[in-house]
Amino acid sequence: MSNVYIYGMKHLLLIQCADRVGLVHSITGILSAHGLNITAMREFVDEAAGRFFTRIEFRGEIANNTALRQELSDKLPAGAVITIDPKQRKKIAVLVTREHHCLGDILVRNFFNTLHAEVACVIGNYDELQGFTEQFGVPFYHVPHQDKPKDLFEQEILHIVEPLGVDYLVLAKFMRILSPEFVGAFQGRIINIHHSFLPAFIGANPYRQAFERGVKIIGATAHFVTNDLDEGPIIFQQTTHVDHTFGVAEMVTTGKEIERSVLSAALELVFQNRVFVTGNKTIVFK
Amino acid sequence: MSNVYIYGMKHLLLIQCADRVGLVHSITGILSAHGLNITAMREFVDEAAGRFFTRIEFRGEIANNTALRQELSDKLPAGAVITIDPKQRKKIAVLVTREHHCLGDILVRNFFNTLHAEVACVIGNYDELQGFTEQFGVPFYHVPHQDKPKDLFEQEILHIVEPLGVDYLVLAKFMRILSPEFVGAFQGRIINIHHSFLPAFIGANPYRQAFERGVKIIGATAHFVTNDLDEGPIIFQQTTHVDHTFGVAEMVTTGKEIERSVLSAALELVFQNRVFVTGNKTIVFK
Amino acid sequence: MSNVYIYGMKHLLLIQCADRVGLVHSITGILSAHGLNITAMREFVDEAAGRFFTRIEFRGEIANNTALRQELSDKLPAGAVITIDPKQRKKIAVLVTREHHCLGDILVRNFFNTLHAEVACVIGNYDELQGFTEQFGVPFYHVPHQDKPKDLFEQEILHIVEPLGVDYLVLAKFMRILSPEFVGAFQGRIINIHHSFLPAFIGANPYRQAFERGVKIIGATAHFVTNDLDEGPIIFQQTTHVDHTFGVAEMVTTGKEIERSVLSAALELVFQNRVFVTGNKTIVFK
Amino acid sequence: MSNVYIYGMKHLLLIQCADRVGLVHSITGILSAHGLNITAMREFVDEAAGRFFTRIEFRGEIANNTALRQELSDKLPAGAVITIDPKQRKKIAVLVTREHHCLGDILVRNFFNTLHAEVACVIGNYDELQGFTEQFGVPFYHVPHQDKPKDLFEQEILHIVEPLGVDYLVLAKFMRILSPEFVGAFQGRIINIHHSFLPAFIGANPYRQAFERGVKIIGATAHFVTNDLDEGPIIFQQTTHVDHTFGVAEMVTTGKEIERSVLSAALELVFQNRVFVTGNKTIVFK
Repeated sequence: MSNVYIYGMKHLLLIQCADRVGLVHSITGILSAHGLNITAMREFVDEAAGRFFTRIEFRGEIANNTALRQELSDKLPAGAVITIDPKQRKKIAVLVTREHHCLGDILVRNFFNTLHAEVACVIGNYDELQGFTEQFGVPFYHVPHQDKPKDLFEQEILHIVEPLGVDYLVLAKFMRILSPEFVGAFQGRIINIHHSFLPAFIGANPYRQAFERGVKIIGATAHFVTNDLDEGPIIFQQTTHVDHTFGVAEMVTTGKEIERSVLSAALELVFQNRVFVTGNKTIVFK
Repeated sequence: MSNVYIYGMKHLLLIQCADRVGLVHSITGILSAHGLNITAMREFVDEAAGRFFTRIEFRGEIANNTALRQELSDKLPAGAVITIDPKQRKKIAVLVTREHHCLGDILVRNFFNTLHAEVACVIGNYDELQGFTEQFGVPFYHVPHQDKPKDLFEQEILHIVEPLGVDYLVLAKFMRILSPEFVGAFQGRIINIHHSFLPAFIGANPYRQAFERGVKIIGATAHFVTNDLDEGPIIFQQTTHVDHTFGVAEMVTTGKEIERSVLSAALELVFQNRVFVTGNKTIVFK
Repeated sequence: MSNVYIYGMKHLLLIQCADRVGLVHSITGILSAHGLNITAMREFVDEAAGRFFTRIEFRGEIANNTALRQELSDKLPAGAVITIDPKQRKKIAVLVTREHHCLGDILVRNFFNTLHAEVACVIGNYDELQGFTEQFGVPFYHVPHQDKPKDLFEQEILHIVEPLGVDYLVLAKFMRILSPEFVGAFQGRIINIHHSFLPAFIGANPYRQAFERGVKIIGATAHFVTNDLDEGPIIFQQTTHVDHTFGVAEMVTTGKEIERSVLSAALELVFQNRVFVTGNKTIVFK
Repeated sequence: MSNVYIYGMKHLLLIQCADRVGLVHSITGILSAHGLNITAMREFVDEAAGRFFTRIEFRGEIANNTALRQELSDKLPAGAVITIDPKQRKKIAVLVTREHHCLGDILVRNFFNTLHAEVACVIGNYDELQGFTEQFGVPFYHVPHQDKPKDLFEQEILHIVEPLGVDYLVLAKFMRILSPEFVGAFQGRIINIHHSFLPAFIGANPYRQAFERGVKIIGATAHFVTNDLDEGPIIFQQTTHVDHTFGVAEMVTTGKEIERSVLSAALELVFQNRVFVTGNKTIVFK
């Protein structure tokens, strides 16, 4: 172990595995043996599940990435998921219907390289957003859902996204429910924005429900999609105040702002590798 | 009409009635004929219900309060509810079970005269909070609910609060459900703090529900009590962020803070005469 | 006065003038004489300044707009500013330097007609944002400030915006200080976003200042521009939490989000005619 | 190293020292050699200062606390500050002047054992809060500042708090400025609540300043006291919205709520051992 204080390139290490005593010691021992210096570290054990999660930022030069991974793998429980320096810019496909507010935000960030991801394409079951998308130089595919069985509709989407090798599908106000088969093909890789502070107002027309109920807050929820509709692991949520002067239309307008803001924050967390999934929950190392 | 700009004593006028054209004109005409100057005014029409609500702060000297009320009444639709200079300090009874956080806040404010209300008594179905209450010089009544029918339990409460002439009952973490008869006797005058951002997590153990669901926000709701449990008109709501490190216990602790803060804000709004009820909703003129 | 409850077209009336007793009565009398029904009304008197402000939403058919205005003018103090049904979509010019986050938000809203305004042009003292602007079909003018006196630079801007008849200039991260002459030509019509929660961190490099000071919140301020730098009437402010893991770069990134959000909210308020200026402050009828 | 997954008593380890490669490894190696399992860990390096900070929650049985500390000390840089299982309930003295809102909150929490600290006494330079304090069974000392030199005033305070062995002094709206000598005697152990979102509105009458400036947010700051007035390391800050209807008095009322809330949050962080000081900043492991 060196006493010399070293700065060097920034690296990131993500690990999840079964928990046992000594994991942090094993992991950090390997890093220090390589002369790598930890600058920020988060660790969490889901005690109910017996699962261990860590996110480690460190500095220094990695002589041999493969060797480092192997050393870690040898010391960790079987089945450990180890990620060293994950892809800086994930590749994503954005699925939309007709609303533009979330898509607009994503495309502007993509244009200026502040999304921490690259939009490979936008797919819409309507074509309203085609012109808007294409003006950013991003391909738009119109895949109507009408007059065809759901499996065919989903096959058409798969045929577009599979050759692109996308890391995540982002449902940016995509109003179709995906089949278990489709969701299964993108396990943990579909992110949705839901227009309420779940679990309130599950189902259709949440803003009308909110108006009828006379709530004083509305909100939005970004979550991973699972086969239980509106029930996947929540990544981020936020609420904002409304009052008696808000009709349904004003709630929708205000809701769009919070939807956009919540999806944006969730994508930032995911694309910066700060989110782990454990059971039906997320661990978010902000 | 005088051109002279007059300051004088501050007054408050509250009106609710059926809506029709010209109401503001009629009302303000009477005020100006009396030489009273409006300094802040809020007006709202619930168009669906055809109901008119206004809250008017004005300055000047009211020569004859009764005459002013009669003039207003003559010009307004039948059934108009007119309040001139409502009671500055409402009289309240606080109902509690075992948790102290909301009660503590109320008693400290009461002690220092910042509650805009006077706590006439505290009633608990357990006696844990008796010593705490009495050290503030406020009477505490222990009314156990065990081993007696609900109507008897409620009769005992009524026998305490009726002679006191309380304006509001505040349920500060009172964990018993009140009967329709009891609620009916205090129509629009019972305020409850509910430990979730309604309509999420209706029912028992909301923080456990929140933990199980893995939500990223928890909250609280202050509402008027009606016979539909957790369904009365909402006065105020607020949420706060939680994360994966929060177990149920930490959610409860954080929840107590938000419960206290939300109830405190709601009482401030009600006691400052800023809240009207229309159907199952509130109009809040902040 | 009719007892019949009438719905009709929505209208908006804005008035500011010297205060005196009876103003609301006079104004509402004229509205009711025309059979116009007030649905929401906000009134405020700045008592220190003796100024009266009101914003009235009403329904009904205005037979003769000019006559209505004249009747109001006859009853109000000299110099009253009366606006009936202000322009639905203000015309604006957006001034930028190099940062895109506020501009991106404005152009997307403009594209989808949710800005309540129309972007007539974008003017940049650098040309980085030209391509981005033009892809939205909005004209971009590159007006460099280098190697020319400030008055010439400002003349070039005036020559662009004056023929366009813009209602507001929006400084969307425009990093040049405007002269008193220029500001005077657009009195109360220049809106700026400042990258701190004023009055904290006035001056250059607010995020570096914030980092050095170790603050736990950063924020942004949207304000009207006056000749006192960073001192104009504040329209909207918001803050967000930061922590010890934020370097200057992370504060800048987070700050951009809050800048965008604050400017967006302020423009919404101004373009929906909810903001009055009184002295160095604003009255905002939300 | 054991593969057995062990639950046991919860412990807490805090370390700060000069940074070098391998610290986490050294620390966690010692823990794992003792069969102690880390359940949550935060680590941060202040790269500018070359300082290392960690907060480790772990489970298991510590056979020999002294031996564990010695082993850690042997492996860490000279001057390392190591704390194992810090005192669960700090002892504090609360200094007040006349305002009760922060004191009330502290005394209620103290009464119900939710403060994570024990209030040993309250000291006031006025006696207004004596009755309120004593009703909670907490000693109150009236130490007037009038007609005596500051050093004598501070000596009287020291004579009260020193025999009590208090860990922290909490300035809960204590309106006297303490001398460098006094501050030096409680280095890093005096916590103040300041009635503005520093660095805005430094100095006297911040709410009047805020009113004059027409800000749309007000806030509060909890910080450690140093000899630079209003310049010590910030622990927590929060803001809340105000509008044109707020006079100075309403800002003060709203401000008291946020002051109380901010001080409460800061005390929770400090008393739960989540706050380190580095230079003029804090590291807060929430």
